[in-house]
Amino acid sequence: MTTQQLIEQIKQKNSFLCVGLDVDLDKIPTFLLKEEDPIFSFNKAIIDATHQYAVAYKPNIAFYEAYGIKGWMSLKKTIEYLNTNYPEVYTIADAKRGDIGNTASMYAKAFFEDMSFDSVTVAPYMGKDSVEPFLAFEDKHTILLALTSNQGAFDFQTKEVNGKPLYQEVLETSQTYKNAENLMYVVGATKAEYFEEIRKIVPESFLLVPGVGAQGGNLQDVCKYGLSKNVGLLINSSRGIIFASKAEDFAEKAGLEAKAIQQEMEEILNKMV
Amino acid sequence: MTTQQLIEQIKQKNSFLCVGLDVDLDKIPTFLLKEEDPIFSFNKAIIDATHQYAVAYKPNIAFYEAYGIKGWMSLKKTIEYLNTNYPEVYTIADAKRGDIGNTASMYAKAFFEDMSFDSVTVAPYMGKDSVEPFLAFEDKHTILLALTSNQGAFDFQTKEVNGKPLYQEVLETSQTYKNAENLMYVVGATKAEYFEEIRKIVPESFLLVPGVGAQGGNLQDVCKYGLSKNVGLLINSSRGIIFASKAEDFAEKAGLEAKAIQQEMEEILNKMV
Repeated sequence: MTTQQLIEQIKQKNSFLCVGLDVDLDKIPTFLLKEEDPIFSFNKAIIDATHQYAVAYKPNIAFYEAYGIKGWMSLKKTIEYLNTNYPEVYTIADAKRGDIGNTASMYAKAFFEDMSFDSVTVAPYMGKDSVEPFLAFEDKHTILLALTSNQGAFDFQTKEVNGKPLYQEVLETSQTYKNAENLMYVVGATKAEYFEEIRKIVPESFLLVPGVGAQGGNLQDVCKYGLSKNVGLLINSSRGIIFASKAEDFAEKAGLEAKAIQQEMEEILNKMV
Repeated sequence: MTTQQLIEQIKQKNSFLCVGLDVDLDKIPTFLLKEEDPIFSFNKAIIDATHQYAVAYKPNIAFYEAYGIKGWMSLKKTIEYLNTNYPEVYTIADAKRGDIGNTASMYAKAFFEDMSFDSVTVAPYMGKDSVEPFLAFEDKHTILLALTSNQGAFDFQTKEVNGKPLYQEVLETSQTYKNAENLMYVVGATKAEYFEEIRKIVPESFLLVPGVGAQGGNLQDVCKYGLSKNVGLLINSSRGIIFASKAEDFAEKAGLEAKAIQQEMEEILNKMV
């Protein structure tokens, strides 16, 4: 999917919500456990109930990998279901991969070709030749970790390098990579005040923002500093939506949660015009 | 496996060689392609021919993931084959994972429990709470990326933070993490001169060293600066061993390559005593 197609979807749905499919067998309604593939059944119901309010879905790959081959099959069925039934939706493989040249190419092939995801999250530590193999894919995005929303972000990401925090060095350096127009960035919502500095470096780039809701970030604050003229934000919510209920009505409740966030987003977008 | 058991195996085999199982269907002997699981057949033959010269095997997870569910089945069969037939051998899942708390736990579960690897490689960018869930596993090692062997390492890893290169900050900070005694580090062999500085910070930690051979590092140089009193090195070689021949004799040739490195290592170890 091109950036322009994503922007059009955002305008059409008046939403920049991404639903995180961090599916855990211990947290889904117990009655689903008797299904042949409980994770896929859960995802399908959640997607059907939320797709009109969300522009993107982000399976966290670790949750699937933890169930071994069965988990990979659930993931594959989920991405195929999305691509077949809701081709307008943007998909993110939250894999946080990072490895050198030929290995990076193998990962890119796995997520962009085998599974046809629109984007994949990538860690910056290994630098240019670990990122550019992902950037080489046309109409695919590489979402680089810049500033994450966890406590450990302060271990290295905010340490000063060349007179600025490391995450800003990551933003600046990555903008010099080949095909940098295919970059987006992960920026945690728990630190809304940082968005102002970030927008000085990457005024137009899309930012994938985890940490609104369960992790404590505030939508209004993030939008105040983070919105670009093309919106430029994908706000992720996982647990707050998908685990809104453990009862028979879990999908309906997930839809209501997604709708509430979408409506808040619509108000914010209306104020922009 | 405990560190002590690894050290005992090193002494017994007079080797600190790790064989990288970076298996690519385009590079294995073509006659294997008619097998039901060519990747596993290849790995099995390589392992059988090299196990007396190597103390560790390191499948690079990307290469398996790139083949989707089939690739994961090949990986699972490979680790089961190693654990069943050569339980003394140390195993490394070269996954370079890095994610927050509960996600890190899911990855740790996948590699340490589902697949019973002895260790997994982890990226440091997200800090403490992305690493400690791996460190919590008893008798398992977490191998943190410190200084990698690729050109991109100079983008961030060698940039100055607190008056020292970022990779040294990673070594120092990670040593304060809970269960830090379960840490090892990835240190690329293309920069042998850096080992002297690294040994000042982590005098006894095991270092996993890629980049000897194909990537240009020199075994003698690395050992000169990198050996600790308990050896403390695992030197990885992938392509130089596993793709030594594409003919019927591929396993035999791999065995000869591994043996040549083991003998060089034996000479180095004999000089230590």
